[in-house]
Amino acid sequence: MSWHQKEITLKPRGRGFHLVTDEIIEQITELKNIKTGLMHIHIKHTSASLTINENYDPDVRSDMNKYFDKSVKENEPWYDHNAEGPDDMPAHIKSTIIGTSLTIPITNGRLNLGTWQGIYLCEHRNNAGSRKIVATISGEEKS
Amino acid sequence: MSWHQKEITLKPRGRGFHLVTDEIIEQITELKNIKTGLMHIHIKHTSASLTINENYDPDVRSDMNKYFDKSVKENEPWYDHNAEGPDDMPAHIKSTIIGTSLTIPITNGRLNLGTWQGIYLCEHRNNAGSRKIVATISGEEKS
Amino acid sequence: MSWHQKEITLKPRGRGFHLVTDEIIEQITELKNIKTGLMHIHIKHTSASLTINENYDPDVRSDMNKYFDKSVKENEPWYDHNAEGPDDMPAHIKSTIIGTSLTIPITNGRLNLGTWQGIYLCEHRNNAGSRKIVATISGEEKS
Repeated sequence: MSWHQKEITLKPRGRGFHLVTDEIIEQITELKNIKTGLMHIHIKHTSASLTINENYDPDVRSDMNKYFDKSVKENEPWYDHNAEGPDDMPAHIKSTIIGTSLTIPITNGRLNLGTWQGIYLCEHRNNAGSRKIVATISGEEKS
Repeated sequence: MSWHQKEITLKPRGRGFHLVTDEIIEQITELKNIKTGLMHIHIKHTSASLTINENYDPDVRSDMNKYFDKSVKENEPWYDHNAEGPDDMPAHIKSTIIGTSLTIPITNGRLNLGTWQGIYLCEHRNNAGSRKIVATISGEEKS
Repeated sequence: MSWHQKEITLKPRGRGFHLVTDEIIEQITELKNIKTGLMHIHIKHTSASLTINENYDPDVRSDMNKYFDKSVKENEPWYDHNAEGPDDMPAHIKSTIIGTSLTIPITNGRLNLGTWQGIYLCEHRNNAGSRKIVATISGEEKS
């Protein structure tokens, strides 16, 4: 039984849904040594989120972004929290709808995702910097 | 301290929200031996999801389905990802709103859910096959 | 490696989004002894939920509440589940959108949240009582 934890960084990206599976896996080399376990990733921000979805067609990511922009609109007259611009409050709402963390099974040193699943960074701000993630790995080591 | 992991299958169901607590528990016999721990279940698909909600009145499940169908519409003119039919892109969006995994406490060999809580399979496709789930159990064994 | 589990109670609150980080941490004293690990909290109800969001400006919480009230309306003519009043079915839907549990990294005896992150109790009923939460802590103890 072992525990590993590290803080990793995802490079800055524009507003939208971005496939980041490889960028995460490359930074978590401890994954390879786990036979059976879980990887938990938590994004330390309130205006970006994490989800798992289709890893192949970029249209899924852009349609997803369009949906959330239409569903959580900017400039609603009833928003009171506007200090950081029109993308501020919508970013907080989207973050709560989608969620700030993921737990993913590890099997034989690899994430046990479906064939078509990948990890998305959902960036809800127009001009965000890099994003910090705490990754926590627990499980049984390979013998 | 022990880890157990297995892949289980949920039988095919039509579009809608389905109570699957018993179908899951029956397949995870390791649960009975855990005194204190967690069960993580992850669905390996991008057009179905998992949630916890009311386990008694079937109207909750059908109202939930109506809400999501109205909130994430088919045939939006701005969808670019339509390859697999009108239920394709809405299924991906619903999956990201609801989520692909659940973590549930285990206490004395049983899931520690509230009296009125059950596990739902949220099936977002009209004609899906069976659905694969990876279940990961960790915790302290009963002595 | 250690496991701790306890049921805690959050005091009754009115409908809305409430910052409860301190109320939770105060009740989970085991947290201080964990060097590297995870805290899982699960709310045992189907009409309240948990999320992580901005911990500073109360306007974020009231705007969030307004968004969810507008997005999941009361008295929809197509709701069949109305037994407990107009806030009944909307509460179930909001609970599934937001989610009933959170997993948060623990580092050196503290929750490893971002500077601006806090835990919200999302209370979806007008007149709810106290809310029960199962907290499960796992990780490596400090030496």
